[in-house]
Amino acid sequence: MKNFAAVMLGALALSCAAPAARTETDPLPSWSDGSARTSIIAFVERVTKKDGPDFVDPSQRIATFDNDGTLWAEQPLYFQFLFAVDRVKALAPQHPEWKNKEPFASLEKGDMKSALSGGEKAIAEILAVTHAGMTTEEFEKIAATWLTTARHPTTNQPFTSMVYKPMLELLTYLRANGFKTFIVSGGGVEFMRAFAEKTYGIPAEQTIGSSGKEKFEIRDGKPVITKLPEIDFVDDGPGKPVGIQKFIGQRPIAAFGNSDGDLQMLQWTCSAPGPHLCLYVHHTDATREWAYDRTSSIGKLDKGLDEATVQGWTVVDMKTDWKQIFSFEP
Amino acid sequence: MKNFAAVMLGALALSCAAPAARTETDPLPSWSDGSARTSIIAFVERVTKKDGPDFVDPSQRIATFDNDGTLWAEQPLYFQFLFAVDRVKALAPQHPEWKNKEPFASLEKGDMKSALSGGEKAIAEILAVTHAGMTTEEFEKIAATWLTTARHPTTNQPFTSMVYKPMLELLTYLRANGFKTFIVSGGGVEFMRAFAEKTYGIPAEQTIGSSGKEKFEIRDGKPVITKLPEIDFVDDGPGKPVGIQKFIGQRPIAAFGNSDGDLQMLQWTCSAPGPHLCLYVHHTDATREWAYDRTSSIGKLDKGLDEATVQGWTVVDMKTDWKQIFSFEP
Repeated sequence: MKNFAAVMLGALALSCAAPAARTETDPLPSWSDGSARTSIIAFVERVTKKDGPDFVDPSQRIATFDNDGTLWAEQPLYFQFLFAVDRVKALAPQHPEWKNKEPFASLEKGDMKSALSGGEKAIAEILAVTHAGMTTEEFEKIAATWLTTARHPTTNQPFTSMVYKPMLELLTYLRANGFKTFIVSGGGVEFMRAFAEKTYGIPAEQTIGSSGKEKFEIRDGKPVITKLPEIDFVDDGPGKPVGIQKFIGQRPIAAFGNSDGDLQMLQWTCSAPGPHLCLYVHHTDATREWAYDRTSSIGKLDKGLDEATVQGWTVVDMKTDWKQIFSFEP
Repeated sequence: MKNFAAVMLGALALSCAAPAARTETDPLPSWSDGSARTSIIAFVERVTKKDGPDFVDPSQRIATFDNDGTLWAEQPLYFQFLFAVDRVKALAPQHPEWKNKEPFASLEKGDMKSALSGGEKAIAEILAVTHAGMTTEEFEKIAATWLTTARHPTTNQPFTSMVYKPMLELLTYLRANGFKTFIVSGGGVEFMRAFAEKTYGIPAEQTIGSSGKEKFEIRDGKPVITKLPEIDFVDDGPGKPVGIQKFIGQRPIAAFGNSDGDLQMLQWTCSAPGPHLCLYVHHTDATREWAYDRTSSIGKLDKGLDEATVQGWTVVDMKTDWKQIFSFEP
């Protein structure tokens, strides 16, 4: 009887223990054996080893992820821009004046190149009519509906299926090891919050992005927050460490990106004293995904690639390091 | 044997269950029996009752707290302003020109009234020299040192002892019931982050406040973030719901404040559909704390008190609802 009780109490202790890193089950099944995978696992084991010299308290295990090109794809155009184009088309019947007004006239015709020839001013005008002039709750509904109905132009998949399976595994692996995972992206924060929790397990308050100004007002006796057509914060380049300081208030110990827009976030993370991990996803697989870097207009990775070499950061070669890229792959 | 196994498995199930509200131990011992305490407990039981009509998923149990006058005292002046005054005095030897320049000349003499006669411009000048022109890491150290060495002018206690014991109990009670607790305060975010985690158990990324602009730069080959003498965001009045949307991205279901500066946060929280709790702390105890409301220059509570009556919000009468205010009380 005593032995039986001991066995049961043992079972009790085991069942109640915090889930440890399951060495018997591979936490990163989509990652090939290679230096990228090895550097991730070695880092996590170093900072979680209780009596080790590099142990980091869970409260300081902050990991930040870029979104476009790092957690989900960004070709042939940033998905949020495709959302804006669809919104322009949906709103066009209420705006007959757009027929003679750029960039809207070209957008309606599907001529992206002409539409974007207006540069930043054209983009600002598109954002203003598609991302402002409504309440935050109205925008949430519009974005959520688009995400469930729209399809990627080349794969015909829902956009939330265009996420990288190895990165989902990495998010789960880090969280299982006591990390808090954050998105720190140039994308619009409210657009990302429409899918980040469901798709990545990252709650709204851990999703940081670019934003427009907003205003609280009482409308018909009911408080609302309206979105104004004015940029508030650009979470890109040097804006990323500033956004991290503003929203997280702690320096990350791990940062993940794919472009020069992530360079300062990686510099900020990996110049701190103590253990840290900086990783670039390098798009090298033209067959299963896309191949682009130094000269791409979307997700340009040039200075960052040089600095990664100098600093010894981890660079993921998508073609060889990832056994599977998307969950929908055969 | 079978019965013994059943008992042990029962124990296993019990031990592994999420911790329930401990009805045998009072979670709010410093709160008198009364309508304030009753409304808090009734609300928490409603939203956590698994099969009840008002159950709220833990991911949506967001509670926001003002800081000055709600979590810690704010008399005779906002503590952060006392910090700024001490900084002006500490910096004065490096600034002989301040001897003939307001508001610094008056501050050095301890003449607060003359110093503040310059209004917002004077305050902006004081903030610029005390909260900018250094890196974020330098500021963190200065604030942390001040918090451990400075003493409150009338109680002679460290400022972090000037927190309300009933509110600490409330924070713990809410978190034990699956709430995420946030500070949403007009105070400076980096000043508050210097003590919020240790004092309130609220981590940096759940501490939201007013902030100045910041800049990422490489200084002597090392990345730093510097604090600029320019306001970025004022987290007060209508700025509070805007700050909630910007930083949390979800509407709270419970909000706690003490002044008209919290009114819009409470309106935003308690006009949402579904169960919600809005609570004002009313400073009514001139003996143990301070008594002030409609005509106070610090923590004015006028419109908010009227709206609390109209909307049926909970109003804490500090004198009768709180058995103990500060932990250091005899």
